Amino acid sequence: MIILMKKGCTQKEIASIVEVLKSHGLGANLSEGQQATVIGVLGDKSKLGGVNLELMDGVEKCVPIMHSYKLASREMTPEGRTVDVGGVVIGGKRLVMMAGPCAVESEEQVREAALGVKAAGAQFLRGGAYKPRTSPYAFQGLEDEGYRILRRVGDETGLKVVSEIVSHDEIDAACKYCDMLQIGARNMQNFRLLREVGRSGKPVLLKRGIASTIEEWLDAAEYIMSEGNYNVVLCERGIRTYETATRNTLDVAAVPVVRERSCLPILIDPSHAAGKAAYVGPMALAGVAAGADGLIIEVHPNPKVAMSDAAQQLTIPAYESLTKQIAAVAAAVGREM
Amino acid sequence: MIILMKKGCTQKEIASIVEVLKSHGLGANLSEGQQATVIGVLGDKSKLGGVNLELMDGVEKCVPIMHSYKLASREMTPEGRTVDVGGVVIGGKRLVMMAGPCAVESEEQVREAALGVKAAGAQFLRGGAYKPRTSPYAFQGLEDEGYRILRRVGDETGLKVVSEIVSHDEIDAACKYCDMLQIGARNMQNFRLLREVGRSGKPVLLKRGIASTIEEWLDAAEYIMSEGNYNVVLCERGIRTYETATRNTLDVAAVPVVRERSCLPILIDPSHAAGKAAYVGPMALAGVAAGADGLIIEVHPNPKVAMSDAAQQLTIPAYESLTKQIAAVAAAVGREM
Amino acid sequence: MIILMKKGCTQKEIASIVEVLKSHGLGANLSEGQQATVIGVLGDKSKLGGVNLELMDGVEKCVPIMHSYKLASREMTPEGRTVDVGGVVIGGKRLVMMAGPCAVESEEQVREAALGVKAAGAQFLRGGAYKPRTSPYAFQGLEDEGYRILRRVGDETGLKVVSEIVSHDEIDAACKYCDMLQIGARNMQNFRLLREVGRSGKPVLLKRGIASTIEEWLDAAEYIMSEGNYNVVLCERGIRTYETATRNTLDVAAVPVVRERSCLPILIDPSHAAGKAAYVGPMALAGVAAGADGLIIEVHPNPKVAMSDAAQQLTIPAYESLTKQIAAVAAAVGREM
Amino acid sequence: MIILMKKGCTQKEIASIVEVLKSHGLGANLSEGQQATVIGVLGDKSKLGGVNLELMDGVEKCVPIMHSYKLASREMTPEGRTVDVGGVVIGGKRLVMMAGPCAVESEEQVREAALGVKAAGAQFLRGGAYKPRTSPYAFQGLEDEGYRILRRVGDETGLKVVSEIVSHDEIDAACKYCDMLQIGARNMQNFRLLREVGRSGKPVLLKRGIASTIEEWLDAAEYIMSEGNYNVVLCERGIRTYETATRNTLDVAAVPVVRERSCLPILIDPSHAAGKAAYVGPMALAGVAAGADGLIIEVHPNPKVAMSDAAQQLTIPAYESLTKQIAAVAAAVGREM
Repeated sequence: MIILMKKGCTQKEIASIVEVLKSHGLGANLSEGQQATVIGVLGDKSKLGGVNLELMDGVEKCVPIMHSYKLASREMTPEGRTVDVGGVVIGGKRLVMMAGPCAVESEEQVREAALGVKAAGAQFLRGGAYKPRTSPYAFQGLEDEGYRILRRVGDETGLKVVSEIVSHDEIDAACKYCDMLQIGARNMQNFRLLREVGRSGKPVLLKRGIASTIEEWLDAAEYIMSEGNYNVVLCERGIRTYETATRNTLDVAAVPVVRERSCLPILIDPSHAAGKAAYVGPMALAGVAAGADGLIIEVHPNPKVAMSDAAQQLTIPAYESLTKQIAAVAAAVGREM
Repeated sequence: MIILMKKGCTQKEIASIVEVLKSHGLGANLSEGQQATVIGVLGDKSKLGGVNLELMDGVEKCVPIMHSYKLASREMTPEGRTVDVGGVVIGGKRLVMMAGPCAVESEEQVREAALGVKAAGAQFLRGGAYKPRTSPYAFQGLEDEGYRILRRVGDETGLKVVSEIVSHDEIDAACKYCDMLQIGARNMQNFRLLREVGRSGKPVLLKRGIASTIEEWLDAAEYIMSEGNYNVVLCERGIRTYETATRNTLDVAAVPVVRERSCLPILIDPSHAAGKAAYVGPMALAGVAAGADGLIIEVHPNPKVAMSDAAQQLTIPAYESLTKQIAAVAAAVGREM
Repeated sequence: MIILMKKGCTQKEIASIVEVLKSHGLGANLSEGQQATVIGVLGDKSKLGGVNLELMDGVEKCVPIMHSYKLASREMTPEGRTVDVGGVVIGGKRLVMMAGPCAVESEEQVREAALGVKAAGAQFLRGGAYKPRTSPYAFQGLEDEGYRILRRVGDETGLKVVSEIVSHDEIDAACKYCDMLQIGARNMQNFRLLREVGRSGKPVLLKRGIASTIEEWLDAAEYIMSEGNYNVVLCERGIRTYETATRNTLDVAAVPVVRERSCLPILIDPSHAAGKAAYVGPMALAGVAAGADGLIIEVHPNPKVAMSDAAQQLTIPAYESLTKQIAAVAAAVGREM
Repeated sequence: MIILMKKGCTQKEIASIVEVLKSHGLGANLSEGQQATVIGVLGDKSKLGGVNLELMDGVEKCVPIMHSYKLASREMTPEGRTVDVGGVVIGGKRLVMMAGPCAVESEEQVREAALGVKAAGAQFLRGGAYKPRTSPYAFQGLEDEGYRILRRVGDETGLKVVSEIVSHDEIDAACKYCDMLQIGARNMQNFRLLREVGRSGKPVLLKRGIASTIEEWLDAAEYIMSEGNYNVVLCERGIRTYETATRNTLDVAAVPVVRERSCLPILIDPSHAAGKAAYVGPMALAGVAAGADGLIIEVHPNPKVAMSDAAQQLTIPAYESLTKQIAAVAAAVGREM
């Protein structure tokens, strides 16, 4: 890290900075120029803990030279990573399609959705067993029974199963029944959960927090990877802004930014970004054109009676029709489906 | 408009609402239900001026039944509009490509850019003559001389000219030298300027304000159209959010939302959203895949010496290469280039 | 809830809505007016689960008549609630002052801070034992040993102890050593944790999520209260916006909004909002003037060597000096300290 | 400015940066350290125009040493500035109170409001003659007749007149009838208008743009000051965020931030931030407690029949009552009313 001091900073202020560095076991390399004084920090910045030098007296700005994430960085793995989930490779030339209902409601509902999306080329079945809901009075999911339904239907149809885990208490059950664990937007900074899924070794689909920066998201991935689990796939699902025409604002530029900074594959979730079925298609195509490694899309046999997110789930015929367009766009950008 | 009263609102509160409506020449249709009292507003809501009934005592919510824009709405023109700029049609099957330098710096620079983008298939030459700059000490553009350079080069190369207008004082000059007037993000709610470009009759490229909702943007288009000028093309260029990895956050969902609510064509400006050349390509392709009617991209013969926005301008070879990918994605979504 | 249909909606669209309502055990009261068709929903809306009717075909808008939270609402408890923490009442005429270091670093550090803030009139000692940190490589706190230090120092000084809990696994330890449990911004929608602290019966300080609406925050309080624990105190600590001059943007208007909608007391945390010691004072005074029931402020005996958030922690003399100003403003708005 | 190069940047990348600097008449001071290469920029950075070096290949970050504003900075005028409007000093110990209706509707309405707010101690009469409205069909104000009404009533009551100007065409009229010109949020970056009010020499009340950073706001002030008009007063009126409980989010921390970075006085407009009369009082008090130099508040003799912003305007008795509380808080922070 480099610390740029303010024009006209005092010697006392400089000495204070050096004192803070030394008290954390770091060295300081002073360079007093004509325009400004610059202090180079020698040693491992992580020793600083949360000390925010930037806001100390006399400091103009601190300039980190390295990101705080290492394992998740592109620098460490310039060739990029792929994640293999039981033979389905995420991050390769072939797009990975995950689809299924928002919430697991019944075995019949899941089976109907699974058969439909399988026929349209999906490799993964998605479905919420544990549902994090804003209100305590809303439907909270079938819990473990939901995981079991997904597993049975996944086995029947040959689809891999991905489902959200909302607490580390369900890790054993989730690992038993799912092929991939999803960390939802609300838990992106539930660091305990991140560590535990890291220890589980299971592939993880890490959604971006609703108001997280890309840097914080990669730091969250680092939590999982720092426990030895490198099977992390990122998923952009829209961020919170002032615009209300859509449920969230899909940050499609996250795809090239992540590609540049990180070695991890990235999917797009157009359903939660859109909040409305009519917008899902264009946003899915945009994600693929921007270079995403796949899509996760909500599909329900009968969205009108869905127990959650009715408005944003596609019907099976709508999903089938969309996959044809996705295949065309994928081919146009050198991918396949 | 429908006014939903709060549960337990008083008769006095209801009477106050009715009084406000009457004082503005509107009728009220009272319906007192078991759950809530609802007041239907009879007559033209615009008579209300800025009265915000929603925040009066006893009011739970006001629900507009009609958008405040009419001419810009999809309802009024379900088949959609195209805008013809000297024979180049915006909003048809063929994508419209606008390209050129951020700022007009010299005739040589503009000519070199124009020849490059023309060869790569662009139909419009863009370039800033009047530059709105955050700091008064930054380069403010060549002003009218910039317009003249664009015109000369446009005529030489057969490219249409689009350039920004920052004040109604330049309308005569801008109309003389340009084929299309651009209203920049900072002026999207400069209502005087909107009215004047409306009166000019010239085709207008209306950029979205940096923190404007889609509804406010369509209201801004309505200002132009209400003066009789229906030749309005919208341009999404990214909105301001907390994310700093890109200059702005491209709201690619604006394409399907605008398509649903408005009859106007919409372009994508990936350059200002990205702020970095490396991200322009993926964002441009995302825009086309989402259904945009064209792109406006900053291209400079030598970005390193550009007088503004150096980092986000493409070189001519980079632009040429990108147009091939754009053509492929366009074909994949049923458009052509 | 009232559903307003779009002008020109079809009978089929209306029938679809009614079908969805019936499939969830709800009735529909149809009213077809001249301007629009309105459907009144009969029955408990929570049966709808996550069904988002607003985005179904033909629907213009859904207007909730009741908030989703009930126990946390002002309607249910018009006189407001106070929370008694071992004899210290939060929400009464007297402001409650919580102060102490960001992180527990050592018993000496905590004792020095505690003696200082106690002398300046604080009733609560704060300090982080478990620290949720963006990077896995940053200092994560002394964990249970931190709780024990706080308890010992709290007992010595007669200060109540409030400390953050980041996972339900630590509830037993936290309940044993702390007088009040803090739910941090990142965990505001960790619903499992909310339920568990609800079951614990301990007083809870619930910080607002970094990008949460006030409605979502009250829904989070409802999670705790729905388990029978009504001892919830809200804490506004700044929200994420595009502005970078401060760490977060303090939403001081949350105080009157919460006062109007909820029965719960509300504190202000100026330290996390400011991110810089120099701004903490004015923001603390603003909070008190707006009507907050107290403040939680970071105070460190020697901020320069603090292991986290160095820049935003006040020194003990600065805190002492600030409390005098706070007392003056409190008196001006009819409170006391 | 200091340019920090990426770890492992190439000599070619460094040479490119130096080339860009030279092409703009600037020198480069290369310092290749162990951790990173740093380039010091020699000369006046404004020569760079809009070149964004930060995004060029090999660049990690650019660190500005000086703000782009100079005249508006605190450094240039450490003692701060006051603005004298016909004998009323803004920025001194005494708070300045501006009040009056959102829009000028009639001479009677303005007179009634003026007499009321004058009796309650206001020094300025506010009122909108030209109203920038989102929709072209909304009431746009009485225009010049509005200015004349304000002048007549101001003269009668001994109140100074402040009113918004939306286009430089009205500068002569506005200067003739008003004592202070207001630049509204939508025009904060209407640079032509800023320059013209700068040239007029009239005191200016510069509202913060709805999504402007504090730095951009001070750059806007610099536009006015760079024309020789130093009589600029800033006004915080809330920024756009995702929260919808209030019309805008009042950034009360702007007061200490502006105080630190700028020499200009700052007022708070609680009315536009609140959007609802019930919240105006607490937000006004918060602004004063944070150190604002005054308030601008919307007051209407009969808000229910107001032609704009009905919900956020105070009645005269409510304003009178509020001023008593303001006086108490002002005294508590060492100011007077």
